[in-house]
Amino acid sequence: MTVQAVIDSLPGIQWITDPALVRQKSRDFFWYSPVLKRQLNGVTAEAVACPRDEAEVIAILSACVKHQVPLTPRGAGTGNYGQAMPLKGGIVLDLMGLDRVVWTKPGVVRAQAGVKLIDLDAHTRREVRGELRFHPSTKRTASIGGFIAGGSSGIGSCTYGKLREFGNILGLRVITMEAEPRVLELRGTDIDKANHAYGTNGIITEVEMPLAPAWDWVDVLAGFPDTISAARFAEALIASDGIAKKMAGVVAPGVAQTYFKMLQPYVPAGAACSLVMVAEPFLELLKPLLERFGGTELYRCETEKAETPLYEFTWNHTTLQALKVDRSLTYLQTLYPAPNHFALIEKMEKTFGDEVPIHLEFVRLGGVVSCFGLQLVRYTTEERLAEIIDIHEDAGCPVFNPHAFTLEEGGMKRIDSEQLDFKRVADPHGLLNPGKMLAWDDPDWTPDRKRSFYLYGQADAPEVEEVLE
Amino acid sequence: MTVQAVIDSLPGIQWITDPALVRQKSRDFFWYSPVLKRQLNGVTAEAVACPRDEAEVIAILSACVKHQVPLTPRGAGTGNYGQAMPLKGGIVLDLMGLDRVVWTKPGVVRAQAGVKLIDLDAHTRREVRGELRFHPSTKRTASIGGFIAGGSSGIGSCTYGKLREFGNILGLRVITMEAEPRVLELRGTDIDKANHAYGTNGIITEVEMPLAPAWDWVDVLAGFPDTISAARFAEALIASDGIAKKMAGVVAPGVAQTYFKMLQPYVPAGAACSLVMVAEPFLELLKPLLERFGGTELYRCETEKAETPLYEFTWNHTTLQALKVDRSLTYLQTLYPAPNHFALIEKMEKTFGDEVPIHLEFVRLGGVVSCFGLQLVRYTTEERLAEIIDIHEDAGCPVFNPHAFTLEEGGMKRIDSEQLDFKRVADPHGLLNPGKMLAWDDPDWTPDRKRSFYLYGQADAPEVEEVLE
Repeated sequence: MTVQAVIDSLPGIQWITDPALVRQKSRDFFWYSPVLKRQLNGVTAEAVACPRDEAEVIAILSACVKHQVPLTPRGAGTGNYGQAMPLKGGIVLDLMGLDRVVWTKPGVVRAQAGVKLIDLDAHTRREVRGELRFHPSTKRTASIGGFIAGGSSGIGSCTYGKLREFGNILGLRVITMEAEPRVLELRGTDIDKANHAYGTNGIITEVEMPLAPAWDWVDVLAGFPDTISAARFAEALIASDGIAKKMAGVVAPGVAQTYFKMLQPYVPAGAACSLVMVAEPFLELLKPLLERFGGTELYRCETEKAETPLYEFTWNHTTLQALKVDRSLTYLQTLYPAPNHFALIEKMEKTFGDEVPIHLEFVRLGGVVSCFGLQLVRYTTEERLAEIIDIHEDAGCPVFNPHAFTLEEGGMKRIDSEQLDFKRVADPHGLLNPGKMLAWDDPDWTPDRKRSFYLYGQADAPEVEEVLE
Repeated sequence: MTVQAVIDSLPGIQWITDPALVRQKSRDFFWYSPVLKRQLNGVTAEAVACPRDEAEVIAILSACVKHQVPLTPRGAGTGNYGQAMPLKGGIVLDLMGLDRVVWTKPGVVRAQAGVKLIDLDAHTRREVRGELRFHPSTKRTASIGGFIAGGSSGIGSCTYGKLREFGNILGLRVITMEAEPRVLELRGTDIDKANHAYGTNGIITEVEMPLAPAWDWVDVLAGFPDTISAARFAEALIASDGIAKKMAGVVAPGVAQTYFKMLQPYVPAGAACSLVMVAEPFLELLKPLLERFGGTELYRCETEKAETPLYEFTWNHTTLQALKVDRSLTYLQTLYPAPNHFALIEKMEKTFGDEVPIHLEFVRLGGVVSCFGLQLVRYTTEERLAEIIDIHEDAGCPVFNPHAFTLEEGGMKRIDSEQLDFKRVADPHGLLNPGKMLAWDDPDWTPDRKRSFYLYGQADAPEVEEVLE
């Protein structure tokens, strides 16, 4: 058996082979999506490799190429789309052992891929009074390498945009999947080759990231008469270049009241909510801004001192909080393109009503204040879900389908020739995270080919109820 | 004589009464404008008071009210519109003696009004690795109080917007002009009462300012085939939220070649130029961005190490550099409103050709990347200058007339009732910087009333050639 041959050839590496543990390390939060749950529930690797340094990573890659064993890299497994799930089995490469900060200077940090975001922020805050410009709502568990390989934006994107924006990643150290793996430093526009590629075309071992000032952040929850008022407030806050802020989320009336347990005591019936993070010196400016949009402050807490920080009620955590209360829910990821975003939000709210409760996150895209939707969806069937997606896209709201596990069908919506070309040189045998880059398996794929197809694995494994919390 | 009575009543105060020195301290850079030069050349105070602390300021204000003597506050006198020129004579209040930093914490500084911007930046950089978010091109001489009372934006506004944006000033300590002066702390929306009011409605003695990260800035001069290519590059840079930058100016072909002595060796004939400041870690991203717009790097220098920093070729310093070569030049201040800014720039460039060489500064206004023009103008007559202004405004480019010394006719273009109301309570006798707030002298003024009128002083004083450098 080839996986066993790899294990046998590398006795110095720490291996996990216990099937239950391996299965656990082969999964992420794909089950937010009933579609992915059906498709990916049976996915598991045969073994997990746990390298402690880059030399071990290189040895593992070399052995996998020699024995032609598929390898799927993984950070903390906090993705939502099966990004790090080994569709073709083989070996999972757990990179959390590469957990060293390499260096820090004012405004910039270089770290190994497995450093947890929360540890990295604590380190840079202490050393140079800096912090990551943005992080996903999974900051307390996710790793920096996993965020870059599998994520795209998050808390702080309201100021700095997405990871893809020029300057939000300064360098990536990438190991190629070859018999003699090469160590590459990607910088400048080359970063796009491996950024958000799910580890399909190289293993990120180190990242160099710019830092933002580490303000004392304060969580503020505000109530509004309706979704649009809350959205207009969030937009105005994000457009205020003078106010240091890190988050501006919005949920429709009913969402906080029903699903945000910790916040329920503060939220009056019928109120839409905005969830923001503002730097302490600018707090006094919130009141006039709230008043302009009919808003009222409901709750305030220093982010660092909160038992559960407010960011764990935003972005994909909104869905998680809702799932804790109602396991039948799922979600969407859309853009409401400016300048018609408010009209589109209202139209969708009217079209779907309580079937698709509105959840917005305001960000900057290419320097323009923009509005993402991470709406909740009361799930019935895959057909209806597809219909909801189509209605959004027909109305002019592109959907970054969170019910697809390939790069192209998710956020990308096109073949990324740069990433494909890089895979050709960095993973010529196609062993890295197989099945995630459609263009590799099916170069003729186009975005009008509907819905994901599943090339490998078994979809009929026994369903396991995920334990929340 | 009433001024003498004030002087006699305050023997502990340091006074300047030598007429030549008083005249010098009664002037600013108003002579950039041939219109203001004609109108204001004879303006002078009778004495200059130089307080060393707030108690002395209060004593001077109280005495001036008692003797009904006009008082005009002044920082370093680096304004361009006669902001701090005593139209009605009386006393000039030189606030440069209030030069203490009150306190500094990460992200925020509080300082007395007379602290020089360059000293304030050095202090906060040393203490908390912070610096002012933006500063005028006169950073090396101007004071923070003068910047707020008489300025509006500058180097750094490409990231943080104008002083008026919520959060760019956190607090102002203001002394009222009453028999018993009150000390007020203006915060939040109240800041608008005294921000950019030319000291007409209170004396700013302390300011509280948010700080930006103190990056190691690098000056980069780039050449382009034409003005619009340079402008598109500057806009793209400013829209890149991932790149830490502080400046993106543009000058048409010929401007750098003819007027920027220090830079002449680097600039090829016929090239338009962009002048930018980028933080060191992001320099490697400039090349691909330049290539996208046909640009070439011509010159690079660490801002701190430059003999003359690149920012002293931007904003109003562009005009100063040009005046050093050609004393017949003057300038405009316009907005090219998005999204038609490029079309408007091209139209104006075509309309005026070499009569109005294009000079642009890209900024953010209300969260939107925007384009100011500080064009050079080959001056002929006041009538033609007025015509040039009219043609711009008729084309949809509002002009913030730098050839007017009143608040309303300059940037404001309307009666600011908030500032007027505040003057009623803070300067009930109308003694502060008289003649600068039109609404006080002429409550019926409307923006369609053409061109400034001069209420006081003598316009026929002997002309003195200003010494440049």
